[in-house]
Amino acid sequence: MEPARVLVAGSDVLMNELIGRTIAAIGALDVPAMASARARQLQLTKPPGSLGRLEQLAVQLAGITGDPLPDVSQRAVIVMAADHGVTEEGVSAYPAEVTGQMVANFLAGGAAINVLARAVGARVVVVDIGVRTPLGPHRELLARKIRTGTANFSRGPAMTRGEAERAIEVGIEVVQSESARGLGLVALADMGIGNTSAASAIVACLTGLPVSDVTGRGTGIDDATRVRKTLVIERAIATNRPDPADALDVLAKVGGLEIGGLAGVILGAASLRIPVVLDGFIAGAAALIAARLAPSSIPFLIAGHRSVEPGHRHVLADLGLHPLLDLDLRLGEGTGAALAMHLVDAAARIPREMATFQQAGVTDREAAPGAAPDDRVAG
Amino acid sequence: MEPARVLVAGSDVLMNELIGRTIAAIGALDVPAMASARARQLQLTKPPGSLGRLEQLAVQLAGITGDPLPDVSQRAVIVMAADHGVTEEGVSAYPAEVTGQMVANFLAGGAAINVLARAVGARVVVVDIGVRTPLGPHRELLARKIRTGTANFSRGPAMTRGEAERAIEVGIEVVQSESARGLGLVALADMGIGNTSAASAIVACLTGLPVSDVTGRGTGIDDATRVRKTLVIERAIATNRPDPADALDVLAKVGGLEIGGLAGVILGAASLRIPVVLDGFIAGAAALIAARLAPSSIPFLIAGHRSVEPGHRHVLADLGLHPLLDLDLRLGEGTGAALAMHLVDAAARIPREMATFQQAGVTDREAAPGAAPDDRVAG
Repeated sequence: MEPARVLVAGSDVLMNELIGRTIAAIGALDVPAMASARARQLQLTKPPGSLGRLEQLAVQLAGITGDPLPDVSQRAVIVMAADHGVTEEGVSAYPAEVTGQMVANFLAGGAAINVLARAVGARVVVVDIGVRTPLGPHRELLARKIRTGTANFSRGPAMTRGEAERAIEVGIEVVQSESARGLGLVALADMGIGNTSAASAIVACLTGLPVSDVTGRGTGIDDATRVRKTLVIERAIATNRPDPADALDVLAKVGGLEIGGLAGVILGAASLRIPVVLDGFIAGAAALIAARLAPSSIPFLIAGHRSVEPGHRHVLADLGLHPLLDLDLRLGEGTGAALAMHLVDAAARIPREMATFQQAGVTDREAAPGAAPDDRVAG
Repeated sequence: MEPARVLVAGSDVLMNELIGRTIAAIGALDVPAMASARARQLQLTKPPGSLGRLEQLAVQLAGITGDPLPDVSQRAVIVMAADHGVTEEGVSAYPAEVTGQMVANFLAGGAAINVLARAVGARVVVVDIGVRTPLGPHRELLARKIRTGTANFSRGPAMTRGEAERAIEVGIEVVQSESARGLGLVALADMGIGNTSAASAIVACLTGLPVSDVTGRGTGIDDATRVRKTLVIERAIATNRPDPADALDVLAKVGGLEIGGLAGVILGAASLRIPVVLDGFIAGAAALIAARLAPSSIPFLIAGHRSVEPGHRHVLADLGLHPLLDLDLRLGEGTGAALAMHLVDAAARIPREMATFQQAGVTDREAAPGAAPDDRVAG
């Protein structure tokens, strides 16, 4: 049965009813809450502006949540896992079977993201949105398989438009159900051997940059393979001719199921006023899709880190985001996002837990000559 | 009574017996432990090198502790607090009484460092090493006052050489007693209105850079005050003529008691093979003092962040350290170090908690063509 379709305001693209409704529900940042958060920063026992990006982040969190003292203590890392037909072309350092094996590793708690999510007190939500291998039922696995991986996009479309829409819907549904469990902060995570090829194709289409500028070594390919990977992506774009003005077309023709799922998580979280911590290049490609479908989702994003993957800096520049961390990471899996969650948590704790000048009986600098005018807390 | 004095190997400087003994006890990084840590990284279920700086940090922690799986779960932020006579010259945005008021704030748990230390599970150890205000006894305060703040170094030496040595000794003693309580990771923290002036003077002397290159806005002074601050520091150096080849002379003539204390924490921690997370510019000046007294202490340092204070990048360059964070912080108090402790903790957890390829039944990339030769894990 074909789902109901709507025309999204300001767009000439028809979309599934859930996607259209979700996009329409995304609001603007809450300006009064941001003003309260800025005022609060100036009362705390520290020189104004001295906590730099943490202060800006606190103001953004207030704007997102509508709460000058936002609570980000309930948090989740949502891992979307799917396979990629393009791995047939030998574009990855690992065989495709690793996607399913790593999902089992996530469920057993042994992957890097499990370790880093535990450290920051975030639950890990694993979603099979398109893994090739059959995965047995598991209490912790959300079975939302749309198809057993994409088709090889160097020979035809990765998936149908309906499948791309369904991937976004799955992301929206997952974040909605996680929100019902309690969710103050969400991090994006991905697993999918071959998915840097899909991300590079998406980023090239949506930014107009040459494929070679946004194609890197992924999990660690050599120079010859990187050249082949670039050619495969260029052929994919030439063969499928995705419409850069239609992000759903780009996602369907050269994207990935997990990337669509993550774009859905962004749209769903933004509609629920939940801050979203981006990870690296894959999450960045998903954010570009989400931003093209709904530019109003961008203010809800926090760039967790800058990946080594060369296309990532172009994504961040396109979205106007500045990463919190720059640690030469290139693992994906949400690892950079999970590390950045500590900083988001710190930013949220400062206005809640610090004493004010008045409470602490500390002399504010109005008493001293030579003080510069208050540094504004940007946000 | 004059303490016993020793000639430190490789130096023509006579020092207190405790300082000399501590420096002599600093060993090299443990090369076999580092090799084990590198080998472990290659077995974990992730592409080699994909966790970037976290992997390098894990190798460094192994080298420091001698344990391929180091335990950094017991941690402390050591806050050294002292006053500065140079505040008479109007070089700060806050009145000098704020030092004592902020110590009370630390003891009440209301300052930024309390919030950030709680978030990372670190205890806060507050040391009065030279606060001007009398501070009543408090269960949580280590009363180690050497004098009620330094003298105004623009008119004469900040303190005597004996007082400078005593400040370093206090730092050594504090970290030794904290180690006895259990300490796997220590962060440096400072409180002292006026202490960016002392830090700028130290850094100018020890690096040879012009004072104007290493003098900034501190807690937030205006342009005119910054010019005055620079002139005051230049006058201090001209008046006192500290010997750049004698870090103790520099500390005594243009330094601060808390800076000496932090240098002592570094030397003590290095001698005990405890990793040290630096904070911003004040901790950086202390690290320069420690590094000049004992170059062997440098490998035990982790640069927590890069401060906005312009002299800090010169300190980091001199020490050959790359900061983990760059968040436009300029608060001091150990806030940047406390934030960075999350990353150090993450680096230590990865090799302890992640599954290996063998344990998880994940195919390693040897099975795939096109993989680049293993990225070496630098350390």
